[in-house]
Amino acid sequence: MSAHRQPVLGILGGGQLARMLALAAAPLGVRTRVVDSAADACAGQVAALTVADWTDKDALARFAEAVDVVTFDFENVPAETAQWLADRVAVFPNPQALAVAQDRLAEKTLFRDCGLATPAYAAVDTRRGLDFALEVIGTPAILKTRRLGYDGKGQFRLRTAADADAAWAVLGAAAAQHGLILEAFVPFDGELSVLAVRGRDGDLRTWPLTRNWHHQGVLSLSLAPARADDALKAQAGALARTLAERLDYVGVFALELFLKDGQLLGNEMAPRVHNSGHWTIEGALTSQFENHVRSVLGLPLGDTAARGPALMFNWIGALPDPAPVLRTSDAHWHDYGKAPREGRKVGHATVCAADAATLAARVDALAGALGRQAQAAPALAELARW
Amino acid sequence: MSAHRQPVLGILGGGQLARMLALAAAPLGVRTRVVDSAADACAGQVAALTVADWTDKDALARFAEAVDVVTFDFENVPAETAQWLADRVAVFPNPQALAVAQDRLAEKTLFRDCGLATPAYAAVDTRRGLDFALEVIGTPAILKTRRLGYDGKGQFRLRTAADADAAWAVLGAAAAQHGLILEAFVPFDGELSVLAVRGRDGDLRTWPLTRNWHHQGVLSLSLAPARADDALKAQAGALARTLAERLDYVGVFALELFLKDGQLLGNEMAPRVHNSGHWTIEGALTSQFENHVRSVLGLPLGDTAARGPALMFNWIGALPDPAPVLRTSDAHWHDYGKAPREGRKVGHATVCAADAATLAARVDALAGALGRQAQAAPALAELARW
Ligand SMILES: Nc1ncnc2c1ncn2[C@@H]1O[C@H](COP(=O)(O)OP(=O)(O)OP(=O)(O)O)[C@@H](O)[C@H]1O
Ligand SMILES: Nc1ncnc2c1ncn2[C@@H]1O[C@H](COP(=O)(O)OP(=O)(O)OP(=O)(O)O)[C@@H](O)[C@H]1O
Repeated sequence: MSAHRQPVLGILGGGQLARMLALAAAPLGVRTRVVDSAADACAGQVAALTVADWTDKDALARFAEAVDVVTFDFENVPAETAQWLADRVAVFPNPQALAVAQDRLAEKTLFRDCGLATPAYAAVDTRRGLDFALEVIGTPAILKTRRLGYDGKGQFRLRTAADADAAWAVLGAAAAQHGLILEAFVPFDGELSVLAVRGRDGDLRTWPLTRNWHHQGVLSLSLAPARADDALKAQAGALARTLAERLDYVGVFALELFLKDGQLLGNEMAPRVHNSGHWTIEGALTSQFENHVRSVLGLPLGDTAARGPALMFNWIGALPDPAPVLRTSDAHWHDYGKAPREGRKVGHATVCAADAATLAARVDALAGALGRQAQAAPALAELARW
Repeated sequence: MSAHRQPVLGILGGGQLARMLALAAAPLGVRTRVVDSAADACAGQVAALTVADWTDKDALARFAEAVDVVTFDFENVPAETAQWLADRVAVFPNPQALAVAQDRLAEKTLFRDCGLATPAYAAVDTRRGLDFALEVIGTPAILKTRRLGYDGKGQFRLRTAADADAAWAVLGAAAAQHGLILEAFVPFDGELSVLAVRGRDGDLRTWPLTRNWHHQGVLSLSLAPARADDALKAQAGALARTLAERLDYVGVFALELFLKDGQLLGNEMAPRVHNSGHWTIEGALTSQFENHVRSVLGLPLGDTAARGPALMFNWIGALPDPAPVLRTSDAHWHDYGKAPREGRKVGHATVCAADAATLAARVDALAGALGRQAQAAPALAELARW
C-alpha cells in the first residue's frame, strides 16, 4: 500500500492473545495478519484476518508469502502445520519447541531433564494402563489428555481408584487419538508462573514471578510480583532460562509451577503469551505482548521490571459491569470483543497501585462494587500477608 | 457479526490520532470505523476504513448508520459536514464547538470572554487591512489564515512592516477564502498546554500541565508535568474548565498557551486529542486517547494523574533508528505506519522515569545514541532547573 515497508507479523489463531499482540505490534510499526477458521475471530477487529483452516495449504502458502514472521496465538496448531510453514518463512517459537510444549509427557520429561521436579506421572494408553498407573501414582490423581487440553478441558479428577471407569468413560476415546497422562494430585500451597521472553540473539528476560489462582481449572486471578524468597525467585528464573536454551526458544513463554513445602514442581509450559502475564500490559515497563513482537522480529527486548504490584481479574463466561473498573484509579479494562459463552475467556481487568496496601484497598472496594468478593478473596488474603 | 453488540466509534479523519484512538478503543470493547479520502490512511491498519470525501453525502450517510457516535481526528472537517452528521447521529465535540475552534478569530474572542488574555490581534481581509492591522499591532507579528492552519502552515512572520508585500504574496489568496488574522509576535518565556477532557455528564478532568517546544512551527518536544507554580496551574485548569463549559464541549481538547512574564496568553484551542498529550499513553494513569473514547461514548472518565515525569520526542519527516529507544528502560516507540515525507509527523517516542534526575539521564543518553542532542537540549536544560 504505502511506499514505506512495514514488517508484517503473521499469527496462527485469532483469539484474544492475537488481538493483544496486534495492539502491541501497531506502535512498533508492525502490521499484523492472523489466520483463523472463524470469520468472527476477535483479533480480526484490529488486524487483517484470513479465514482458513490449518489444513488449507493454499491459504497457508499465501499467508506465508504475505508475512515476514509467523507466531502462534494457539499452542495446539498441529506441529506438522508449523513445520510446513517453517520450511517457507521464519517461525518463532520453532516447531520442535512447540511440539514439546504441546505434549504433556514430552514436557514433563524435559522438565526433569532440566532439574525441575514434577508431580508423579505415568503415560496411559489403555483402560488397563490406567489401572497400572493408578497403582503406581495412587490417588487422588488427575487423568489428562497428553495433547489439546486447555483451560482445564480434557481432564478428569479421580478421588479413588473406583473413579477409573468414570474417568475412562470421559477420556477413553481420547486415549487412542492423543494418549493420556495420569498425574498425582498435588495439594499445593500455591501456583506460580514464570513469564519469560527470549530474543533471536539469545537475550533472555523474565518478568517478576506471578502468583495465580484457578477456579474450576481456569485462571481466575493473577497477582504480581508474587511474594517469594529470593532463592526461589532465582531458581524459577534459572529454570526458565535452562528450558528456553534447551529448546532454542524464541518468544514469550510461561512456565506454570506448583509450590509445595517450599519446593517448585513443574506443571506445564505454555509456548506463547499467557493469561497469567496479562497484568504486564499496565503493570510492567514492557508488556509480554510487546516483547513477544520484539523477540520474534529480532528487535531489542524491553525492560521487564514491574511498575508496582498488580492484580488481574479474569472474566469468564460474561463480562461484569465495566463502570466500577473504569471508575477505579489505575484499573484497566480489557474486553476482547467476544460473544459471551459459558467458560469462555471474554476479558480481564488489571488493578495497579504504587504499593500493596493501596492495591488491596482498591481491589477490596472494586470487588465489592462488582459483587466479586469471592473471586478476589484469595488475592486479598495474600496481600494481607505482605 | 457477533451476537454481542459492541459500540462503534466513528472518526472523521484516519491519521495517527485516529489510529491511536482506535488502539485505545479496542480494550474498551469499542470498534472503530474511520472515514478518510486516502486509501492508505494509517488508521486503516487497525480499524475499518471507509474511503470517502467529506462532501460524499452517500458515503457519510452509510457511515452515520454504521456507528454509534462520531468524533474527529482532524479539526478542519467542514462545520457544515459536522452539522449534517449531527442531524443523524451523536457527534462529539458538538459542531458549534468545532466551528469556534476552527476559527482563530472566534477562538481568541472566546478566550477574552473567558478571561484569558491573548496576543494582540486584528482580522485582516484585504491588503489594505493588513497595513491598518500592522499599524495597530506593530511588529514583529505573524499573519495567519483564520482557518485550516496546522503545524505552522498558513503562517507568515513579519519582522517589519516592510514584509507586508511578501506576506501578502503568500497569504493574500487565502484572505478572500478563509480570512486572515494578524497577531503580535510574543517573545514568550515558554509554551504550555492544558490537556483536558469533559464527559457527557459534565465531569471535567485535566492532565498535569505540559511544557512544549516547537521547531519551525511544529511541535518537537513535550515535557510533563511542567514546572509551574500552583497558582498558575490552577489558573490554567480553571480556564480550560470555563472554555469547555461555555462550549458544552465533550471529549478531549488542548488549550495552547504562551507564558510571558508569569502571565498566560491564549494561543489556540485544539478540539481533539493533541500531539502535546501523546506522553499520556505511558506517562499518565489514563491516556488522552482512552479518555476521549470514554467521554464521547458516555463512559466514566479515568484518572488523569501522571505516573511520573515524561518526555516526548516528535519524529518529523522520517523516523530515527528505533533500536536506541527500544533499549532504553521505560521508553516507548510509536511508529504511525506512515510513509516518510518532509515535515510530516511520522511517529514519536516517550521516555518515562520515576523522577526528574533519572529522566534527564535517560534522555541525555538516548539523545546521544540517536544523534538528537539539539532536539533534546531545551528539555534537558529545563530538567536541570527542577
Ligand atoms: N497435578 C495436579 N495437581 C493439582 N492441581 C492440578 C494438577 N494439574 C492441574 N491442576 C489444576 O488445574 C489447573 C489447570 O491444569 P493444567 O494447567 O494442566 O490445564 P490446562 O488446561 O493446560 O490449563 P491452562 O490453559 O490454564 O494452561 C492447574 O493450574 C491447577 O490449578
Ligand atoms: N503570536 C505568536 N507569537 C510567538 N510565537 C507564535 C505565535 N503564534 C504562533 N507561534 C509559534 O508557532 C507555533 C505554531 O503556531 P500555531 O499554534 O498558531 O499554529 P498551528 O499551525 O495551529 O499549530 P499546531 O498544529 O501545532 O496547533 C506556536 O506553538 C508558537 O511556537
